[in-house]
Amino acid sequence: MTARLTIALDVMGGDRAPAIVIDGANIARERFPNVDFLMVGDEQRIEPLLARLPLLRKVSHVLHTDKSVSSDEKPSTALRNGRRSSMRLALDAVADGRAAAAVSAGNTGALMAMAKLSLRTLPGIDRPAIASIIPSQRGETVMLDLGANVTCDAQNLLQFAIMGDAFARAVLGLTNPTIGLLNIGAEEMKGREELRQAAILLRESPLAAQFHGFVEGNNLSTGSVDVVVTDGFTGNVALKTAEGTAQLIVHFLRESFKSSIWARIAYVLMRPALTQFRNRVDPRRYNGAVFVGLNGIAVKSHGGTDGLGFANAIGVAVDMAMHGFIDKIRSQVAVLQATSADPTPAVSLAP
Amino acid sequence: MTARLTIALDVMGGDRAPAIVIDGANIARERFPNVDFLMVGDEQRIEPLLARLPLLRKVSHVLHTDKSVSSDEKPSTALRNGRRSSMRLALDAVADGRAAAAVSAGNTGALMAMAKLSLRTLPGIDRPAIASIIPSQRGETVMLDLGANVTCDAQNLLQFAIMGDAFARAVLGLTNPTIGLLNIGAEEMKGREELRQAAILLRESPLAAQFHGFVEGNNLSTGSVDVVVTDGFTGNVALKTAEGTAQLIVHFLRESFKSSIWARIAYVLMRPALTQFRNRVDPRRYNGAVFVGLNGIAVKSHGGTDGLGFANAIGVAVDMAMHGFIDKIRSQVAVLQATSADPTPAVSLAP
Repeated sequence: MTARLTIALDVMGGDRAPAIVIDGANIARERFPNVDFLMVGDEQRIEPLLARLPLLRKVSHVLHTDKSVSSDEKPSTALRNGRRSSMRLALDAVADGRAAAAVSAGNTGALMAMAKLSLRTLPGIDRPAIASIIPSQRGETVMLDLGANVTCDAQNLLQFAIMGDAFARAVLGLTNPTIGLLNIGAEEMKGREELRQAAILLRESPLAAQFHGFVEGNNLSTGSVDVVVTDGFTGNVALKTAEGTAQLIVHFLRESFKSSIWARIAYVLMRPALTQFRNRVDPRRYNGAVFVGLNGIAVKSHGGTDGLGFANAIGVAVDMAMHGFIDKIRSQVAVLQATSADPTPAVSLAP
Repeated sequence: MTARLTIALDVMGGDRAPAIVIDGANIARERFPNVDFLMVGDEQRIEPLLARLPLLRKVSHVLHTDKSVSSDEKPSTALRNGRRSSMRLALDAVADGRAAAAVSAGNTGALMAMAKLSLRTLPGIDRPAIASIIPSQRGETVMLDLGANVTCDAQNLLQFAIMGDAFARAVLGLTNPTIGLLNIGAEEMKGREELRQAAILLRESPLAAQFHGFVEGNNLSTGSVDVVVTDGFTGNVALKTAEGTAQLIVHFLRESFKSSIWARIAYVLMRPALTQFRNRVDPRRYNGAVFVGLNGIAVKSHGGTDGLGFANAIGVAVDMAMHGFIDKIRSQVAVLQATSADPTPAVSLAP
């Protein structure tokens, strides 16, 4: 019998909270029969929704608070005034061990700031990052950082690689995920200095055998490596560019299907195949970005998602909790620190 | 009667040179009856190809050289040893006024290095950039820098905005193109310092009315602004990410069309509509990146393109030459310098 796992939900976070959070939990309940939910939020609004879902009610515990963080609140304000908010209490439940992970569709900046304060950064990690899965021609790729750090040095990038490796093992179930550093490939412009330094660090690290060197923007989709490491500025631009391009192509495609009577008939014939296509490019499928590098699992859902998308974010949290994501990072950091404690350092930072 | 225009072609540059260059010139000849070609390369290989195309032969002049720059040559080596290469001689023809623009599908790094040396940077411009057009839901967007400068300061970005404005006027025919700075939008992480400074400079510049502030990666495809300004690292990653994503979606789509007998029938019915779709996402359509900020027009074609793609790169060169692209930059720089020569500077670099 599998041990039961508790996931804390910020029921008040997101554009259509609390309804989509409860919907998402109900979908996740079917997928993960060993999961209990700690529902943090306004019980006056949660209880009527749960009353209609007796099976979910049975695996849920409501932690009442009438405070929540608004979507436009500054992280500094949220930190100061949000000690009793649903977001903060969900994270605190992870910090003191009552929950294995927290999921919120609320304000990204506030969630990051609160997660750092409540869960604290792991020893050996200088800066947490945001990681997520993106689709590729070969399956799925882990990418980080997606926006937590606008500039990064070589050490940060090395640490992101360690966290990305643990992510790919926990969520994608890979044994020795390959790792690439996102760079540009044009001749004589071999990218930025910190990337060259990070490549040197990686080649001397315990991840050396998994490190495949530099990759370029198009390799995110070809799936040339399992883990793509970059700074939060570049990662955020790349992720949003990919989302925008996917929407553009689907927009062009939709116009094609309307362009003639034959195309309209074709659309009807193709409907089942197009459903499969739509599922593959559905952003809800890849919902759930993880704040990695903390003493606990915090998952950020898109604010505008629906129940299905929120259930997928819960799924990411469950995968990470069940597969010992945090312990994997801890042990890799320990190995790395043992290596670099060597009195004759094998790593040279000279270009 | 329209004045005739000469375009210099590096006939030996690219994966399938000289054949695709000659093919491209022949397609461009039909589109632009007022264009002559200066074909720089090995006449032993060019003449037999031209012999089969008498109409192209009539508007072409061959400048013989048996030297060319290889695709894997280092820019520094190409600069030193390539003084008589087809690439260099094509650029020199622009420098001394025998041609209005040069087009090459050769080695990007070598072309950039040679173009800087041969054409020199425009007064008032610190660093040239690479600019191109990308498709969007509203039409087309100019993006720069796409890889010439891995790091940029606020002044560089302001100058890129000036060059992007001139590009959009010359190639897209816009009167007051809107301009955005590529940034990330997550809360409390308002992007990089140089971007905030560049935004201040732009708000105080002659382009202030056209400046729409920060845009994000997805805005490249929505077409929220006509010109997107970024550093060469981010621009290169974003461009390649968009290309990779487009390929991924088309890959998923192709699999959908094969997934059942009904989908295969639908494919036949949809063929004309899909041709239109394919044209809209065809990378050849957007072939032709321009090195902007030089005393002359140099256009870089993809190395692996075909005749149609190369013809489009020639088309970009023709548009820029016919619409006074360089003069537009010169006059904007003059206005900007007049503004900043003001004894009480309106521009503060304080954050």
